[in-house]
Amino acid sequence: MPDSAQPAPTAASTDPAALGVMQGVPPPPDKRVRSVDGTSWRFPNTRWSFSHERELGPSAVVRRGPGPAAALPYSLRDDLDAVTFTTQDGRSMTWGESIDENFTDGLVVLHRGAVIYETYRGALQPHVPHLAMSVTKSFAGLLAAMLAHEGALDPQALVPTYIPELADTAFGDATVRQVMDMTTGVRYREDYVDPDAEVRYYGVAAGFSSPPKGYDGPTNIFDFLKTLKKQGEHGEAFAYKTCNTEVLGWIVQRVAGRSFAELVSERIWQKLGAEEDGYVMVDSMGFAMCGAALNVTTRDLARFGEMMRLGGVFNGQQIVPHAVVADIASGASKEAFAKAGYVTLPGWSYRNQWWVSHNRFDAYSARGIHGQACYVAPGAEMVIARFASHPTAANGNGPLDRVSLPAYEALAGRLTKS
Amino acid sequence: MPDSAQPAPTAASTDPAALGVMQGVPPPPDKRVRSVDGTSWRFPNTRWSFSHERELGPSAVVRRGPGPAAALPYSLRDDLDAVTFTTQDGRSMTWGESIDENFTDGLVVLHRGAVIYETYRGALQPHVPHLAMSVTKSFAGLLAAMLAHEGALDPQALVPTYIPELADTAFGDATVRQVMDMTTGVRYREDYVDPDAEVRYYGVAAGFSSPPKGYDGPTNIFDFLKTLKKQGEHGEAFAYKTCNTEVLGWIVQRVAGRSFAELVSERIWQKLGAEEDGYVMVDSMGFAMCGAALNVTTRDLARFGEMMRLGGVFNGQQIVPHAVVADIASGASKEAFAKAGYVTLPGWSYRNQWWVSHNRFDAYSARGIHGQACYVAPGAEMVIARFASHPTAANGNGPLDRVSLPAYEALAGRLTKS
Repeated sequence: MPDSAQPAPTAASTDPAALGVMQGVPPPPDKRVRSVDGTSWRFPNTRWSFSHERELGPSAVVRRGPGPAAALPYSLRDDLDAVTFTTQDGRSMTWGESIDENFTDGLVVLHRGAVIYETYRGALQPHVPHLAMSVTKSFAGLLAAMLAHEGALDPQALVPTYIPELADTAFGDATVRQVMDMTTGVRYREDYVDPDAEVRYYGVAAGFSSPPKGYDGPTNIFDFLKTLKKQGEHGEAFAYKTCNTEVLGWIVQRVAGRSFAELVSERIWQKLGAEEDGYVMVDSMGFAMCGAALNVTTRDLARFGEMMRLGGVFNGQQIVPHAVVADIASGASKEAFAKAGYVTLPGWSYRNQWWVSHNRFDAYSARGIHGQACYVAPGAEMVIARFASHPTAANGNGPLDRVSLPAYEALAGRLTKS
Repeated sequence: MPDSAQPAPTAASTDPAALGVMQGVPPPPDKRVRSVDGTSWRFPNTRWSFSHERELGPSAVVRRGPGPAAALPYSLRDDLDAVTFTTQDGRSMTWGESIDENFTDGLVVLHRGAVIYETYRGALQPHVPHLAMSVTKSFAGLLAAMLAHEGALDPQALVPTYIPELADTAFGDATVRQVMDMTTGVRYREDYVDPDAEVRYYGVAAGFSSPPKGYDGPTNIFDFLKTLKKQGEHGEAFAYKTCNTEVLGWIVQRVAGRSFAELVSERIWQKLGAEEDGYVMVDSMGFAMCGAALNVTTRDLARFGEMMRLGGVFNGQQIVPHAVVADIASGASKEAFAKAGYVTLPGWSYRNQWWVSHNRFDAYSARGIHGQACYVAPGAEMVIARFASHPTAANGNGPLDRVSLPAYEALAGRLTKS
């Protein structure tokens, strides 16, 4: 329970440099963020660790390759901080205020391909990759859709067609399409604050979270997936469960015969003209957490979003087939999505691991807890790449969405007026 | 004890791709290399893992920065494989044969700055960083010498001047110079095959090696160093002990107020025009193993050696002061070195964490177990960067030296004749 005598933490009061987090050689004991004792997951340490994930565990490079970085033209605007909007819970706020309100670490806004707004706070810098959390899922979904477009993967096939090891699990009679759109019926609680939820054991198996005392369960992602049982029916409702993405990652990697990190590098990052190598945290066997653990720079995430906005074209080439982008942008069943009960996301849908708003800007986005986002708004010719370290992971991004979604729409509104 | 009925392993018989090591999604259980059970340190798995260290533990980036890579001109020669030499144990061998004899993973030879020989074997590729082992030490020594040259660090000062935490340890009355040249008297056995040697517990504290059952000792490098006790006198004899480098790394990082990875990046890698980011494995608190854990590409190590050969100048700038390079190249006391009893290194000395041959080519080198080397031979205008995964770490590089040192000299001899 929060101590009501304590003021609520703010971005300023939890700034890692001001707090002295990881300052000194070595830092004093109470300022250490460590890989082995859970300190790296404790707020406000997360304000530092989300920008230093590779220093806390094994990772695989997402190589940018030898080419030059794709130029990002700058056309910074000083009128955006004053853009006003009303939060979903009725507060009046400016765009400038919303940045720290949501514990933003890095933010790049593109309009017609030019950087119109850019800021770095906390421990993040322009050249430093930040943990993208579930934004990672949208990369896995994109790769799956690309393989399907090429005919290498059949979305209508049952999962065991590609992964016989999952025949006796919840996924035994699920289609790849159901996994891609997260409409499987599987017993898996995606509750980030319940220590007994399956998502916690996923993190433990992947080496991302500290194991409870005496843990003797799976120690890699594949073995974890083999433990999952069916609950309900497939294909009836959207239910956000990271295990789907890990199954999809398994399928994608097996079909392509390449690791997730290699696929993102070879098919996207090297073509995109990324400024910096990205990376993905891996389990004890070296395999990526396809659902949670990509780390890239804010600018490179913006380039990625711009490529999506332009129908798959960026840096002088068609990187993702136009049809794949169009399929994502058009979304899926709003009815199936509504069953998940997201009060902050009315009328949305979920397609190929992307969140589709169906708003007046046709915006769709990759989203991760604690405030990670790649928000593509074709109707406003706008892309927002944002990394954050918001204190709460409760209710997904609900508490942030109440601020950030109206903020994004207000910004899009301003840009379509100018 | 080796089974005399088993043929000795060769580079060909232990090729990781041919063996299927880490092939498949996931690999079969007997082909897995894991971070948690010691499999990553078991030969022949090391033939894979030395090229995949970051996938096995936490690491910090040694960033190359945004500039272009410094061009390496190519002038490949096809006459070098036939160069013949006699090993220190009396066998006649060709340069070409020596490559696999020493389980080479990557090798680049520069002559007058041009690549005259290049090969990649095993799991290594041109763009992939390889574990440099104790070659890392020479980077730490170089940084210390640079700080001393700038007046930021006094080699004659006692260690506790900079690190009061070490006042009651073996290093309490040692000078920085004695640490730089490894002439301290400290109880620390650098025996890589003795499971009770202190070097093993250094690896455990740093998270590099699996802890023995029930281990409750230090869990970071700094705490480990605080446990070391004096044995013998300082300043009398060279004794190769990695703990000296970790003390030096602590000093360097505290004096500069930057991490080892940042220092290598800012002072060397970014200026060098490296092709790829390097990285260094870090302990559970995010601090580098300055004595063992740098990973860079073979070509970038060659660029680094060429910079040393040219008196600190490379890529159009003075990267390391000429006086610092000259001090290393001229070596230290051969008498102090001889007391260490290296039969394969007659007449050598050790200066600022570099091994100085005093041979007819004035060669000096950075050296790491299992066959890592950056061999600079000014008298032959030659630089050799070599990574390897030789099965043995016994007696340092003794078994390899018997082959590789005569091979290097034979190559230098050929180049000075042409």
